[in-house]
Amino acid sequence: MTDLRTKIEKANQEATKRMIDSQPVWVDVRKAIDVCPGLKENMIMHAGPPISWDRMAPPQKNSLKGAIVYEGWAKTLEEAERLVESGKVEFSPCHEHDAVGSMCGVTSPSMPVLVVRNETFGNQGYILIYETSEKERLSFGSYGPRVLENLAWIDEVAAPVLKALVTKMGSVNLGNIISRALTMGDELHSRNTAATALFAIEIAPHLMELNFDRAMVSQVIMFIQQCEQFFAHFSIVAGKVTADAAAGIDYSTVVTTISRNGTEVGIRISDLPAQWFTGPAGHIKGLFFSGYTQDDAQLDMGDSAITETVGLGAFAHAASPALALTKGNVDMALAYTNEMQEICVGNNPNYGIPALGGKGTPVGIDLRKVLDTGITPGINMGIAGKRGEGQIGVGNSQAPLEAFRKALLAFRDKYAAEK
Amino acid sequence: MTDLRTKIEKANQEATKRMIDSQPVWVDVRKAIDVCPGLKENMIMHAGPPISWDRMAPPQKNSLKGAIVYEGWAKTLEEAERLVESGKVEFSPCHEHDAVGSMCGVTSPSMPVLVVRNETFGNQGYILIYETSEKERLSFGSYGPRVLENLAWIDEVAAPVLKALVTKMGSVNLGNIISRALTMGDELHSRNTAATALFAIEIAPHLMELNFDRAMVSQVIMFIQQCEQFFAHFSIVAGKVTADAAAGIDYSTVVTTISRNGTEVGIRISDLPAQWFTGPAGHIKGLFFSGYTQDDAQLDMGDSAITETVGLGAFAHAASPALALTKGNVDMALAYTNEMQEICVGNNPNYGIPALGGKGTPVGIDLRKVLDTGITPGINMGIAGKRGEGQIGVGNSQAPLEAFRKALLAFRDKYAAEK
Repeated sequence: MTDLRTKIEKANQEATKRMIDSQPVWVDVRKAIDVCPGLKENMIMHAGPPISWDRMAPPQKNSLKGAIVYEGWAKTLEEAERLVESGKVEFSPCHEHDAVGSMCGVTSPSMPVLVVRNETFGNQGYILIYETSEKERLSFGSYGPRVLENLAWIDEVAAPVLKALVTKMGSVNLGNIISRALTMGDELHSRNTAATALFAIEIAPHLMELNFDRAMVSQVIMFIQQCEQFFAHFSIVAGKVTADAAAGIDYSTVVTTISRNGTEVGIRISDLPAQWFTGPAGHIKGLFFSGYTQDDAQLDMGDSAITETVGLGAFAHAASPALALTKGNVDMALAYTNEMQEICVGNNPNYGIPALGGKGTPVGIDLRKVLDTGITPGINMGIAGKRGEGQIGVGNSQAPLEAFRKALLAFRDKYAAEK
Repeated sequence: MTDLRTKIEKANQEATKRMIDSQPVWVDVRKAIDVCPGLKENMIMHAGPPISWDRMAPPQKNSLKGAIVYEGWAKTLEEAERLVESGKVEFSPCHEHDAVGSMCGVTSPSMPVLVVRNETFGNQGYILIYETSEKERLSFGSYGPRVLENLAWIDEVAAPVLKALVTKMGSVNLGNIISRALTMGDELHSRNTAATALFAIEIAPHLMELNFDRAMVSQVIMFIQQCEQFFAHFSIVAGKVTADAAAGIDYSTVVTTISRNGTEVGIRISDLPAQWFTGPAGHIKGLFFSGYTQDDAQLDMGDSAITETVGLGAFAHAASPALALTKGNVDMALAYTNEMQEICVGNNPNYGIPALGGKGTPVGIDLRKVLDTGITPGINMGIAGKRGEGQIGVGNSQAPLEAFRKALLAFRDKYAAEK
C-alpha cells in the first residue's frame, strides 16, 4: 500500500505542476469542423458527459435543435428533432473533441471557435465566442429569430474581426490577464469584469490599426464593452487546455474534468482520461432574476466547471466577494476558497489572491481528498430556465459525491494488484 | 458652546453631504489660460500652498523653469530663472485657479487641461493630461529634450484626440468609474489600474468611430494602455470639484484642501475657504526604485492629496492591499482605512469597499477629530527625486498636525463671540 500511495502522491504532484506550468494563449479563430479532432460534418457537440437523446435536458435539446436549423440541416425545430431521432445527426461531448461549451455547450461544425494553445505543453482547446449578454441565447437553451440574428452577427462580424486581430497580434497571453484579474475582483467564472476590461485595453490599439472595415471593428469593441462576461469563454477554454495538460498521468487521482449536461455531472481523472464517472446533476442555489424561481431552473449544466477544475471560479471565490452568492460578504467568500483548499493538492503561485495575502488559488482536486472529507467541488455559474427562457439567474452548485465514488472504485480496480 | 457645536455638526454634515452628492464628469479639453479663473498670460501655476521662489523645493523650481522654456519665454533654464527673479513671470497655486496639479503641479497658460464638471453643483476643475509613465517628467521636476518631446506629444496628439472624443461623447461619468474601480483593487490615487481599463473600454468604441487621423487615435489608445496611472489625473480633478463643492460653508470644520509644495503642506477648511494653514512637508515612507534612497527624496509634494481629502487614496487603502506600502497585507490595508475613519464625519455610500462588506469610503475630514485623536490624514503618493531625477519611488506620507492646529485657532478666533 505504501508504494502505491507514494506513486499516487508523486503523480498528483506532477498533474498539479502541469496545471500550474500551463500557459494558455489565444492564437486563432477557426470553424469548429476545421480544428476539433473527431468532429464530423453531421455531428453537434454539447456540454457534459455523453447522454442519450431521451435523457437529454430540455434546454440542451432545444439548443441542439436550434443548431441544426442554424446549420441549415432542417427548417424547423420539429424537423430537426426528427433528424436527430432518425440518427442522421450525431451528438458528442465537447470535451471529447478538445472543446468546451458554456451551459448547453451546443457547438455545430460551421460555428467559429476561439483557438487557445497551451504554450508549455502544445495542446489546443476550442470554444465558441461569447454569444451575447441578452437573456435569450442558444447556449442557455433559447431559440428564436433574435438568437439566430445574434449567432449570424458572431459569424459574420465578430469572428472575422477577432481572427484578423489575433492574426495581427500573433497571440494574446490569457494567463497574464487571469492573473491580473484575480487581483481586481474577478474569480474568472461568474465574474470577468476586470478580465474583460484588461482584454479590451490590450487589444484596443491593435483593433484601431486593423486594416478592416471600420464599422465592423467598431461593433466588436462595442460588443465587448457591453458584455462584462466576454472574457468568460477565454477563461473556460484556458481551463480546458490547462486541465488537458494534466490528463493521462498514471497513478494520478487528480480530477481533470468536471462537466454537466443538465441531467448528469461527469468527472474524469488524470489516470483514466477517457472514462466518465457520473452522478445526478444538482440544484443550483442562487439568485433568480425577477419573475423566476427554483422551479423554473434547469439542473446543473455546462462545461464551464473546467474553471473550477483548474482552481478558478468557486475555488477563487475569495478574490470576488462581490459575486451574487456572497453579496460582498468577505468572510463567506474566503470560506468558499478555504473549503476548496481542503480537497486540493496545492496552490497556483501564478494566480495570487489579494485577500489571502497573495497566496495562490487552490489547484489540483484530489479525488481521495474529496472522499476523505466529503467536500465536493463547488461551482459558480449562471442558471438556465428549463423551458428555453434563457438565463434566469446566477448561483452555485455542488458536484455529486457519487461521481467521485465511482471514479475511486475504478481507480482501485485498475491498481488492485498493487494493493 | 452647545449652540456653536450644534452649528458645527450641522455644517459638517452639509459639507460631507455635498462631497457625497458630487458627480464629477469629464466634459472638455481646453488650454489652461482659456478656462482657469485668474490665470494670467505670464503666470505659471504650481502645486501646494503659496510659496516664495527662495523657499520653493528644487524639483518644483526646475519644473517651473522648464515650463517657462516650454512656453518659449526663455531659451534656457538659466534664462528662465532670471525671468522669475526679475518678477516678470508670476506663479500661483493651482488650487487658487480651480485647478490641481500632480507632484510639482506646474501648469503653464498654453498647456491643455482636462475640464471636469461637478454635475450636481455646477463647479468646474482643471488638470493636465497624464504626462507619461516614464521616470523623467516635468511633473516630477525633470527637464530635458525627452520631457519636452513628451509634452509636445500631449499638446499635438493626445489633447486634440481627447477633445474630439469627449466632444463626441458629450461627457464621461468619472464617479461611476471610480465607484467600480474601488471594487477592483484601486484606491484611485497610487493605483488606477482598474479605473484606467474601465475608462479605456468606455471610450474605445467612440475612439474607433472618431472622424480623426487614425494614426493619432491609435497612438492615444496605445498611450493609455501603457499608462496604468492614466486615470489618476481624472481621479485627482474629480476630487477637486468634489472638495470645492463643500467649501465655503459657515461653521464647517471639514477639510476641503490638503496640498503640498515640497516645502510646506497647506490645508484649507470649509468655513475659511480662502485661507491656507501650513506646516512643514514631511518625509515619505515608502519603497525606492533601484539605486535611490530616502536621501534622494524630495519631501511631500503635490495637489494629488485632494483624493484623500474626498475619501480616496490612503482613505480607501482597504480597497487596494496590493499597493506597494502594504504589499498585499490585507489587515494592514484595512487598518489604514479604519484609522482614517476615526477623523471623518461619515462614509460615501457611492464608493463602497468590498473588503469592508461594501461600506463606503470614510469622507469629510473633521479638523476637530484630527486634533482630538492626533491622527493626521495619510497620503499615498509617488516620490520625486530632489535633484530632478523624476520619479524614484512610491510611498505614504502624513499631513503635519501643525497645519490643523493653526486652522483650529483661526476658526476659534472667528467664532470667539459665540463661545
